[in-house]
Formats: sequence, C-alpha cells, structure tokens
Amino acid sequence: MSEEEAEKMLLELKEKAELMVDLAYSSLIHDNKEIAEEVYELEEYVDRVNDELQKLAIEDTKKGELEVNEALAIIQLGISSEMIADAAREIADVQLREIKLHPVLKESLMESNEILLKTKIAPNSVLKDKKIGEIRLASETGMWIIAIKRGNKWIYDPSKNVVLKENDILFAKGDKEGKDHLIALAEGKERKI
Amino acid sequence: MSEEEAEKMLLELKEKAELMVDLAYSSLIHDNKEIAEEVYELEEYVDRVNDELQKLAIEDTKKGELEVNEALAIIQLGISSEMIADAAREIADVQLREIKLHPVLKESLMESNEILLKTKIAPNSVLKDKKIGEIRLASETGMWIIAIKRGNKWIYDPSKNVVLKENDILFAKGDKEGKDHLIALAEGKERKI
Repeated sequence: MSEEEAEKMLLELKEKAELMVDLAYSSLIHDNKEIAEEVYELEEYVDRVNDELQKLAIEDTKKGELEVNEALAIIQLGISSEMIADAAREIADVQLREIKLHPVLKESLMESNEILLKTKIAPNSVLKDKKIGEIRLASETGMWIIAIKRGNKWIYDPSKNVVLKENDILFAKGDKEGKDHLIALAEGKERKI
Repeated sequence: MSEEEAEKMLLELKEKAELMVDLAYSSLIHDNKEIAEEVYELEEYVDRVNDELQKLAIEDTKKGELEVNEALAIIQLGISSEMIADAAREIADVQLREIKLHPVLKESLMESNEILLKTKIAPNSVLKDKKIGEIRLASETGMWIIAIKRGNKWIYDPSKNVVLKENDILFAKGDKEGKDHLIALAEGKERKI
C-alpha cells in the first residue's frame, strides 16, 4: 500500500461514517426512507473499504513499509469508522422498520445548534447554474453542502467546482442561524446570497 | 418519564456522541491527550444517560404512557448513540495509548471540507468580551463554536449568550474556507469580523 492509498482510505472512512450519522438522523427527522436506504448502501461500502484497509495495513507491515504501531493505529481507526457506520445503520433501521418516532421527539432532534437541512433548487433560484465555489455559500450563510441528490445520483462532499442544477436536492449542514437564508435562496424567494 | 425528559435525553445523547467523534479525531490531529481524556469522560456520561433513558422508556411503557413502538425507537436511538460514543473512545484510545499516527496520515484527516479547528482568544482579539450571538460568527466565517475550554471548565454547544473571554480555547467546526479568518480573529491579527 502506498502511503497515499492509506491516507485516501482513512479520510474516506472518516467522512463517510460521519455523513452516515447525519443522513441517518435526517432520515428520521424528514421521514425519508430513501435517505435511510442510502445509509444502508454506504454501510456496505464502508465495510468493503475497511476490509481492504486492514488487509493492506498488515501486508505492508510484513513488507516492512509500515511500523507495527502505525499499522495498529490504522486498523483501530478503520474499525472505529466501521462502528460509527454500524450505529448509523441502526438509526436508519428505526426509519426502515417503520417504527414511528413521536413528532415531539423528532422536533427535539432538530433543536441542536448544528442542523442538517434538505432543500431543492427551484427554477428561479439564484443558486441555479452556479459553481459552489463561486457563491461562497459557507461564508455567506454559515451552511455548507455535504451531499447533492441529482436524479438517481448522489454527489458526496462536493468540491468547489460542482455546478448546482435545477431540481438538485441539497443536504446542507451548519449552524441553524443560516438555515432560513439558504432555503430561501434555493427556493428562489431570496436573490441576495 | 415526561415526554420532555425523553426529548432532552435523546437530543443530549445525539449531540454528545457527535461531539465525541469530532473531539476524538481532533485529539489525534492535534496530538492532544487532554482532549482524548475528555472523550473518555464524555463516554461515561453518555453511558449513564443512556442507561437512564432505557429504564425510563420501559417503565413508561408499563405505565401506558408510551406506545411499545415508541419505546423501541427510543431504546434503539439510545443504543446507537452509545455505539457512536464507544467508537469515539476507541479513536481517542489511539491517542492515549501513544500509538503514533504517521504525520502524513494526520494531514489527510484534515483534508476534509468539513474541519474542526482549535484556537485561543488573544488579549487583543476582537472576539474578546463579545457575546457569540453578537458577532454572528457562523454567518460571517462559516464556522461555529462547538465547545469552549475555559480554564478547567468545558462549555459544550454554547448558546448565543455566552461571552467569549481572553484565553478561551475555542473548538470550532465548519467549512475549511472559514478557518484562516476565524483563527486570525481569535489571534487578534484581523479586526474585521
């Protein structure tokens, strides 16, 4: 394993595991089975990447390319990401098994300062056909896009070069004070970013 | 259990578990044992709250105050939060057992668009003696404060009314484009929020 590969895998496991926790709670709050199913798929993906990482870490220790301690750290971090992913799947499971959360409990999960919102780009939105980097969303609204659903395709942790399209469903995260602003921009009700 | 109590506990478990993941990775990235130990303490706290929540959920189902399905959902969410907290403790464990991560791996963990930063309020910082609500940090920098270390005390998910003090250590989260701005404000190198 080149060091670069290990880096890429570890970062990916960390990001996907954290995203899964967000999506899992979001599936409960928005009563959305589609997001819950997405969590299931991501969990399988995390399992596969983790298996690969563990195998490579041990092979490379054998080859003398990794110190024993480094390999142990990598293995532990991989396992921890998988534990987080498993927990997210259990949260999504509450949604998929149609166990209904009391509406008041749902609201309480939205009361955190850090929130995840879901919004759709309207035909007249000022965000339409703009690069994420160009609109400086994070600085202007305190929210940033963690995933985009475009038709059947998902774009996770989109780069600054991704162009937002009409009907894109945005999953954005941040401090709740930016929530209304971002939704108004996406829905075309506010023109000033 | 009043519904209000269950709400408060579930929200608390979710927030603490997510904060623990952030702090655990942060302890690795910043080579900081103190943060890692904080994760250990939070894990014990999450265990206690979860035990209490589970017990109350079952007692209240017996009393007829909760539906069986509602109790199951609450119990599952509590267990999932505890799983996430356990995973965070395992990540912190990598730091506490002094298993050294390769510096390149550490850097890769910082490459995500979503980052956690640690900075200290300097005597001449424009943030000093200001309310968090007053400086509109989230809107202006895209970063918000998830925890403050003040002497030996920690303030988690601080409200808008918390006044920032000299020497406060801020843990802030957000899109990485806001990082340099917030650090410059805290260090007194930039006056314009």
